Amino acid sequence: MTALPLLQEELGPLVDVRPEALEEARADRSGHAAVGRPLAVVHAETVDHVQRTMRIATATRTPVVVRGAGTGLAGAANAGEGEIVLSTRRMDAILEVRPDDLLAVVEPGILNADLNDRLAASGVWWAPDPASRDISTVGGNIATGAGGLLCAKYGVVRDAVLGVDLVLADGRLLHLGHRSVKGVTGLDLTSLVIGSEGTLGVVVGATLKLRRLVAGDVCTLTATFPDVRAAAAASAAVTAAGVQPAIMELMDAASLAAVHALLDLPAPAPGAAQLTVRTDGPAAAAEAETIAGILRDHGGLTTLARDREEGERLLAIRRSMHAAMASLGTTLIEDVSVPRSAMPAMFDEIARIERDFGLTIPTVAHAGDGNLHPNFIFEGPETPTHVWAAADELFRSAIRLGGTLTGEHGIGVLKRRWLADELGDDQWRLQRQIAGVFDPLGILNPGKVFEPDA
Amino acid sequence: MTALPLLQEELGPLVDVRPEALEEARADRSGHAAVGRPLAVVHAETVDHVQRTMRIATATRTPVVVRGAGTGLAGAANAGEGEIVLSTRRMDAILEVRPDDLLAVVEPGILNADLNDRLAASGVWWAPDPASRDISTVGGNIATGAGGLLCAKYGVVRDAVLGVDLVLADGRLLHLGHRSVKGVTGLDLTSLVIGSEGTLGVVVGATLKLRRLVAGDVCTLTATFPDVRAAAAASAAVTAAGVQPAIMELMDAASLAAVHALLDLPAPAPGAAQLTVRTDGPAAAAEAETIAGILRDHGGLTTLARDREEGERLLAIRRSMHAAMASLGTTLIEDVSVPRSAMPAMFDEIARIERDFGLTIPTVAHAGDGNLHPNFIFEGPETPTHVWAAADELFRSAIRLGGTLTGEHGIGVLKRRWLADELGDDQWRLQRQIAGVFDPLGILNPGKVFEPDA
Ligand SMILES: Cc1cc2nc3c(=O)[nH]c(=O)nc-3n(C[C@H](O)[C@H](O)[C@H](O)COP(=O)(O)OP(=O)(O)OC[C@H]3O[C@@H](n4cnc5c(N)ncnc54)[C@H](O)[C@@H]3O)c2cc1C
Ligand SMILES: Cc1cc2nc3c(=O)[nH]c(=O)nc-3n(C[C@H](O)[C@H](O)[C@H](O)COP(=O)(O)OP(=O)(O)OC[C@H]3O[C@@H](n4cnc5c(N)ncnc54)[C@H](O)[C@@H]3O)c2cc1C
Repeated sequence: MTALPLLQEELGPLVDVRPEALEEARADRSGHAAVGRPLAVVHAETVDHVQRTMRIATATRTPVVVRGAGTGLAGAANAGEGEIVLSTRRMDAILEVRPDDLLAVVEPGILNADLNDRLAASGVWWAPDPASRDISTVGGNIATGAGGLLCAKYGVVRDAVLGVDLVLADGRLLHLGHRSVKGVTGLDLTSLVIGSEGTLGVVVGATLKLRRLVAGDVCTLTATFPDVRAAAAASAAVTAAGVQPAIMELMDAASLAAVHALLDLPAPAPGAAQLTVRTDGPAAAAEAETIAGILRDHGGLTTLARDREEGERLLAIRRSMHAAMASLGTTLIEDVSVPRSAMPAMFDEIARIERDFGLTIPTVAHAGDGNLHPNFIFEGPETPTHVWAAADELFRSAIRLGGTLTGEHGIGVLKRRWLADELGDDQWRLQRQIAGVFDPLGILNPGKVFEPDA
Repeated sequence: MTALPLLQEELGPLVDVRPEALEEARADRSGHAAVGRPLAVVHAETVDHVQRTMRIATATRTPVVVRGAGTGLAGAANAGEGEIVLSTRRMDAILEVRPDDLLAVVEPGILNADLNDRLAASGVWWAPDPASRDISTVGGNIATGAGGLLCAKYGVVRDAVLGVDLVLADGRLLHLGHRSVKGVTGLDLTSLVIGSEGTLGVVVGATLKLRRLVAGDVCTLTATFPDVRAAAAASAAVTAAGVQPAIMELMDAASLAAVHALLDLPAPAPGAAQLTVRTDGPAAAAEAETIAGILRDHGGLTTLARDREEGERLLAIRRSMHAAMASLGTTLIEDVSVPRSAMPAMFDEIARIERDFGLTIPTVAHAGDGNLHPNFIFEGPETPTHVWAAADELFRSAIRLGGTLTGEHGIGVLKRRWLADELGDDQWRLQRQIAGVFDPLGILNPGKVFEPDA
């Protein structure tokens, strides 16, 4: 028996086989698409729908690609020939908000920004804030272990999830984690699911750890530097001085120029790089002063926003990066992360790779935590060989500097080739065996994260 | 071939077979001891010693109990008949401290307090602070997922480890995690090792996430309440008000009376319970005032320490709890954790269990995070049946209130009977299979965490 008629029989109108739906599910926002077309998109609305879908998939040995909003940048939600797309997007209820316990219980399909809009009334928020917060789901954020602009100060997804409800490949439902702040009962499977990119099970619910809204105002400032190395060194000095900005974003010359062009702003000085810093909380103004002083000492030309609106204007420049890159061509957004002190050295490596490969690699960085996004731009849908060769150099440099392939976007299909380089063969095999415990038939997102037959 | 002659041949003087060493390794600080005597204690001094020991254990199928300082409270480091004790206590070097990257690389055997004494010179600290910080190892803290007094504000071990080096049962060495703040490369095995109680491998090194020393002074205050429920409700009100104390400890009447007796202080009013609160950071004084106000509004009689020394005297009362209990008899220290708002209800459950079983159960709680330590006191080395029956009720109550069996001490042997009750049978089996991926022969701490043949 094949899966499609069974799905249609059991789940009726939730099973979407319209060509445009199938076509859409082939690609996420990485610019990469799967080969062939999936069987169907199942729009699950309840845990039961997810369980039934997985039971049919198991019975018929059909691969399943779980999908949130499809905003991923690693190709992890791309579904190809013969695969079932299981969308959790419609499961978007908030089941419980407990400001006293600083927790919320939610379904996976709610958009990050919608959740935070609703939480604000209770004086609380969920800290993970990917730049895609308006368009990505909490389930997708959990499955990728998403980061964002605020995470140097307020943490990443791993710091903000108490428990997840997980449907296994065979349809069984597990409740992982707990509602209490502390808990060391057995192995920490909640953490294992965070960042597992749809390979261990379907996240059908999550108990989120909330924070109280930060009191006080925010202060925003920018500092312009003659070159990117100086900007990187200045940001490292801020961290080393022990002041903790809420946001500290770095844009290199090519990024800054591209955004200025997109927004019709006057072109920046050639070679100039920029830091955008935001402080918050009761000491926001004093901290902004301290940081501005450090940046000036490191050769920065600083501008302090006079009010919140001007602050938003300064940050809008960084927020327009994605659009600016898209306007130049197809973009492969990389995501290496290094210890903060290694950021200047990582920028040196990027400059070397640019020279060696004759490329321009516009780069922005979450400078507060050492996470860099170098962008490769090219024409057409396929990443050219020499771009992959340059990316390969980039990954190796990051690992050599004590860093990692991916700080927040995940492995998906685009980085699986390098996974064993970072993990080592022994760990790679061990991880794969662990995935096999959750999914013995290998029907959950096959070929993602772990390269087949590597 | 048996393991002992092989160990002696390969590791010579590191292999300790003195009867007193073997006897000591039978028990941790839980008051419970293993049956029979282990084969030998291997005092590993290098990673290579650990690897050789594990290779011999694998070749001869001999069980291995990894041991730090043996201060555990769950019987997890207790070694019995025919087992090898692998002590990591001598591997106590600090390999690297990077205040700029807020990280340190250490060996597992260093004592928590020694590490922090050494880090202080660099202006940084490692936040996990079990009450046993002077006597427990960082490796043991990681393997148990330890908590402490400060963790409501500064986090538990899970929040403070970037990576671990792990020797597997067969002697292979894996490097898990990374040095960068962010990283989502593959599955998060670092988190899986945290709290795994020696069942997945031997932690031979750790990359720790540090914090900068907190500037400013500390303020300490106590508040006395007519009964424990009032004290619990007041502490929940502090949390709900959004002030974040560094420490907020609760002592019930029996605990308070026992400590006062031990320290020769005047007896407290009958039934009186106490909260001890510490604030720190630049706003310490203002926060202490706010908190004192909330506690008074909830019927508390507050005393604010005038200086650091008086503050230490107030906290010393809480810190003497362990000694006070030990002076009364053998103690079984429990460790349930509930959502903060459920603390008053949990104290009601404890009162009910006291009535139902005719017991007094002195209880202290890390009130800032909902983690309670009810103490069962009895004569002699064996936990009496009715105490286990009462503990059973306690666990079920905690789980019913949305909590967990163990907030920070772990499962070990003492709580393995209840593990499947909390996890559910499906998750229990899955966890056991995952442990089997790391340790296919089942030689690492067999019988701990997972009950045999359950
Ligand atoms: C403009 C833009 C900016 C971005 N900025 C950031 C950023 O700052 N930080 C960052 O980390 N990422 C960023 N991203 C990437 C992306 O938004 C995140 O990876 C996000 O977490 C993906 O969520 P999603 O709902 O779109 O998931 P999808 O793309 O649908 O899926 C991503 C992965 O999660 C799995 N998955 C989704 N839902 C579930 C579920 N319920 N159960 C199990 N597995 C599931 C999928 O199988 C897939 O492996 C950005 C993307 C764009 C387009
Ligand atoms: C007075 C007192 C107060 C305490 N207060 C607290 C508290 O506030 N919070 C708290 O969480 N705990 C507390 N504890 C319990 C105990 O101190 C902690 O569990 C501590 O983390 C154990 O460390 P250890 O080095 O003594 O480990 P051990 O007791 O030697 O071992 C504990 C577990 O860790 C494993 N292990 C140890 N080292 C390694 C290694 N290198 N690799 C792999 N596995 C290893 C062992 O196999 C065992 O399973 C207290 C104990 C006492 C006696």
